[in-house]
Amino acid sequence: MVDTIISSKTKEVVIGAGRPFVIIGERINPTGRKVLAREMAAGNFERVKKDALAQVEAGAHLLDVNAGIPLADEPAIMAQAIQLVQSITDVPVSIDSSVVAALERGLEAAQGKPLLNSITGEDERLELLLPLVKKYGCAFIGISNDESGISEDPDVRFAVAKKIVERAEDHGIPRSDVLIDPLVMPIGAMASAGRSVFKILNRCRDELGVNTCCGASNVSFGLPNRKVLNGTFLAMAIANGLTSAITNPIEPEIKQAIQASDVFMGNDENCLTWISANPSAKKGSAEGGERRGRRERRGRRSRREAAEQG
Amino acid sequence: MVDTIISSKTKEVVIGAGRPFVIIGERINPTGRKVLAREMAAGNFERVKKDALAQVEAGAHLLDVNAGIPLADEPAIMAQAIQLVQSITDVPVSIDSSVVAALERGLEAAQGKPLLNSITGEDERLELLLPLVKKYGCAFIGISNDESGISEDPDVRFAVAKKIVERAEDHGIPRSDVLIDPLVMPIGAMASAGRSVFKILNRCRDELGVNTCCGASNVSFGLPNRKVLNGTFLAMAIANGLTSAITNPIEPEIKQAIQASDVFMGNDENCLTWISANPSAKKGSAEGGERRGRRERRGRRSRREAAEQG
Repeated sequence: MVDTIISSKTKEVVIGAGRPFVIIGERINPTGRKVLAREMAAGNFERVKKDALAQVEAGAHLLDVNAGIPLADEPAIMAQAIQLVQSITDVPVSIDSSVVAALERGLEAAQGKPLLNSITGEDERLELLLPLVKKYGCAFIGISNDESGISEDPDVRFAVAKKIVERAEDHGIPRSDVLIDPLVMPIGAMASAGRSVFKILNRCRDELGVNTCCGASNVSFGLPNRKVLNGTFLAMAIANGLTSAITNPIEPEIKQAIQASDVFMGNDENCLTWISANPSAKKGSAEGGERRGRRERRGRRSRREAAEQG
Repeated sequence: MVDTIISSKTKEVVIGAGRPFVIIGERINPTGRKVLAREMAAGNFERVKKDALAQVEAGAHLLDVNAGIPLADEPAIMAQAIQLVQSITDVPVSIDSSVVAALERGLEAAQGKPLLNSITGEDERLELLLPLVKKYGCAFIGISNDESGISEDPDVRFAVAKKIVERAEDHGIPRSDVLIDPLVMPIGAMASAGRSVFKILNRCRDELGVNTCCGASNVSFGLPNRKVLNGTFLAMAIANGLTSAITNPIEPEIKQAIQASDVFMGNDENCLTWISANPSAKKGSAEGGERRGRRERRGRRSRREAAEQG
């Protein structure tokens, strides 16, 4: 399987099956965040700054930057946000928009080799955006839907993924620069959503040999205890070949699920990351629980023995 | 893929790919539990009783019963423990021993159709135990090692699994009565342990069409925060086809990982089990967290606005 390289001016991030899972921080996105949208539209990027720093601190390897604010000058805001993020962190960026002009301004503004997020399998989008990918030499996320919408059939979605990879190659873009997004639907609305994603991930890994990426938060929409659902879903997807995701590393349940998945994929050498993320204090408290259990058992036995003697 | 049916006198448990994951409670096992071993050897089954009830209460569909106590009369203790467990719960049992006489006494004592745990791929064990499985009409766990030991190569372990299934069929035992255990090694000692298991599970599902079972606790041996590791490992294994496991449902991290996995495999109809296990209190507190987040953001803005005005 290929490696996908993304970079900032000073840092290279490699996405690949034999490597630790790559986390793309999702928080810099005004969709559904009214205060952030208002602030960004007014040229106030304080919250963007905080979100950038907090996500990198929590382990994000890339930062997704979305500037989708209704009626605002999205291309200008995108450029500003990307410049800001890359001035205060050293991570590469994922330029996230459905507006071509915003993607292009983002590509102009970004340092290194960014990730373009995203291109669907619609012919018009492919013909519009693949030349841009080629021109800027970036990598991109290809989304497995096309003119006919999002199919419920994983084989149809895989066919779209395959078409995207082939069309990219026609434009001189190697498959190492394509991440396929299998499209994650809310499991509460479609019981087959998980199985479909697992199947597409398997086929992308085994038949196309490309890396994959998904937005992992949508899957739990409408359900309780979403963090545990999102973390578990990521682990299951990683076990089926997923190599990166747009998610929130600040949530401990999600971060731990990803780190444990790295352990079981054999991508955490000597489990050192896991061990350092779960220091002896935590280990002690877990063992403390076992010790307490033994004490309780001893305690019960003592009471029983006392009763027998009594 | 086939369904595997296990039963008590009054309850049928079905293991299969299109069904909720089956939990076999691991706690009734004196290995490494000195107090329990001493008590069982002395004919005191109070702790067995408590462990049985607590595990069923926590969601165990079957109870594993192991009576492996050095120098004790294992066959007699096995029979007593099984009779006791089936007198106070309605779940089927898994009869867990490496001693043939203990397995046979367990089979005599058990009501319904129990699970025999386990038979390795060693010719001698197969020829000794398969006739017993046939005689009692039970199901069994086939372990993917043989005379040559436990191979690190998943394809070799799969070949042993295949041999077990075929040998069982030679004895008139249908593959629906065979659960293959891919053998889970500690990931801290062998970085490929997870990937090997996933590959064997895939092949068991796709090529043999049999159900699978594993002891899921050994995988985290020697590492900190074992409950999260065990839960995550189970989710990843389920995503690769695992249909049952011997584990501890009393641990919330493990129980939640299994329930979330059922959701993503499409085996929790309308997510009703998940929703009822995560009631509005928890949901409220999660949403409360988001609300608090919004309040905090508003709070910061207010302070900033105040500062700007000041």
